[in-house]
Amino acid sequence: MELVTAILKKNSELTGREIERIFAEKDGDTAVLWEACLYSAMSGGKRIRPTLTFEFAAMLGGSEDSALPLAVATELVHTYSLIHDDLPCMDNDNVRRGKPSCHIVYGEATALLAGDALLTEAFRTVSESGALSDKVKLKAITELSEKAGIRGMIGGQQIDLIGESTKLSAGLHRKMNLLKTAALMECAAVMGVTAANGDKEAERAAREYGRNIGLAFQAVDDLLDKGEENKTTYLSFMTENECRKYVDELTDKALESVRHYGKSRNLCLIAEWLRSRTA
Amino acid sequence: MELVTAILKKNSELTGREIERIFAEKDGDTAVLWEACLYSAMSGGKRIRPTLTFEFAAMLGGSEDSALPLAVATELVHTYSLIHDDLPCMDNDNVRRGKPSCHIVYGEATALLAGDALLTEAFRTVSESGALSDKVKLKAITELSEKAGIRGMIGGQQIDLIGESTKLSAGLHRKMNLLKTAALMECAAVMGVTAANGDKEAERAAREYGRNIGLAFQAVDDLLDKGEENKTTYLSFMTENECRKYVDELTDKALESVRHYGKSRNLCLIAEWLRSRTA
Repeated sequence: MELVTAILKKNSELTGREIERIFAEKDGDTAVLWEACLYSAMSGGKRIRPTLTFEFAAMLGGSEDSALPLAVATELVHTYSLIHDDLPCMDNDNVRRGKPSCHIVYGEATALLAGDALLTEAFRTVSESGALSDKVKLKAITELSEKAGIRGMIGGQQIDLIGESTKLSAGLHRKMNLLKTAALMECAAVMGVTAANGDKEAERAAREYGRNIGLAFQAVDDLLDKGEENKTTYLSFMTENECRKYVDELTDKALESVRHYGKSRNLCLIAEWLRSRTA
Repeated sequence: MELVTAILKKNSELTGREIERIFAEKDGDTAVLWEACLYSAMSGGKRIRPTLTFEFAAMLGGSEDSALPLAVATELVHTYSLIHDDLPCMDNDNVRRGKPSCHIVYGEATALLAGDALLTEAFRTVSESGALSDKVKLKAITELSEKAGIRGMIGGQQIDLIGESTKLSAGLHRKMNLLKTAALMECAAVMGVTAANGDKEAERAAREYGRNIGLAFQAVDDLLDKGEENKTTYLSFMTENECRKYVDELTDKALESVRHYGKSRNLCLIAEWLRSRTA
């Protein structure tokens, strides 16, 4: 576990420094909006998605410099999705990662705009990067716009909304998790392959790894957080033991997808850590 | 005026057909979200921004096919900004273009997600277009992410928010209009130049034209809508006559920027029409 902590810490610092650099450019007249973006983007997330990007790039011998803008872009999208998710018209959460949510600190209107700004900035970060070829940039932008958009994460959030008023089937619940959580994890992993100019086989491995740990991540969350009775979770369709077994299967698939790469140790450690996390 | 009506109609039909094509792909499980996107994107806007893209491309001998994805992308961004603007935490407008706002029809949560989806889809539309070179795509994505983001439109919306609680100076009010309205008009005009592979001089002309008609557009809005007394408008800083003169100056600058191009007739007609519109 100490190894994973060190891996996350290193990748988190790289990501955080770059995010701070981007939002340090702030315009004085709209300073509060820049601060709201920075507040949420620097609020102590584990940076799992950037870590997937960095570690897939490293597995293929890619550079940190080329992985960085793609790691940041996915993390900015993740941050925006949390801000919008916390708004009163969505989950109405006043607390995020132990701190007041963006809209509690800055008001709903500025939080809404900060989310919009972070999403737009994600695409600018890729598009204006000095470290990537045109081909890599476009591959990354296509991936991000598919996995973050109506065909991906946002579609998953819509299914989540539907689940608030009707009971989701097991199939639709799985689709929700695939889109809402796993799609962006898959995107983050593929971003690392893209940064390293990896081949189709590496891309397939990244999709398999990202999707499976994304699904496992959500199932572990459901095991850890048995609070909300009305919400459809994996435990609506299986016992705790079955769910634990499901997590093991998913994790094994993720491990299988990268095991034959010589430098996949970090990715294997991360998958094992996600399986066994307790918070 | 009949000529301008015909120009807008033609460009509007091209844009609408493509938007309908994109959102016809809809996923059954999230159909309501796709419908919300389509509802707002097809709600009878004048399609001024797509028209600027098509007409700048045409002025430079560019094709409709290459202008189309860029025209659509800017219009999707414009549509998302209206959906989020109408939300209760922003302007709280129940009516848009004479029809119930997106959140009135689909609820706040789905309207929020529809806005997020349209913004993301704008980038996908450019990135996955089959009609554009990689170079053109990246130039367009850079332009869109700057002009629609925290450095552009969203920055302007934040200044607008600030103006709700404090009185804006004339300078800050002008900056708000530059960012909130003119930035995306400028973007739309530049998109046409980009689609046609225009040179630096053409890009400068498009920026000048788009920015000036954007500012004029807002000033005419202020002249037509003298309703809200508490809101800072151009009439907070000048008389009606002065404002009318300001609109004329801006329109003249826009006309001047394109006049020496042989095929700028449509753009000149549009600028004249925007100056004299009464609704």
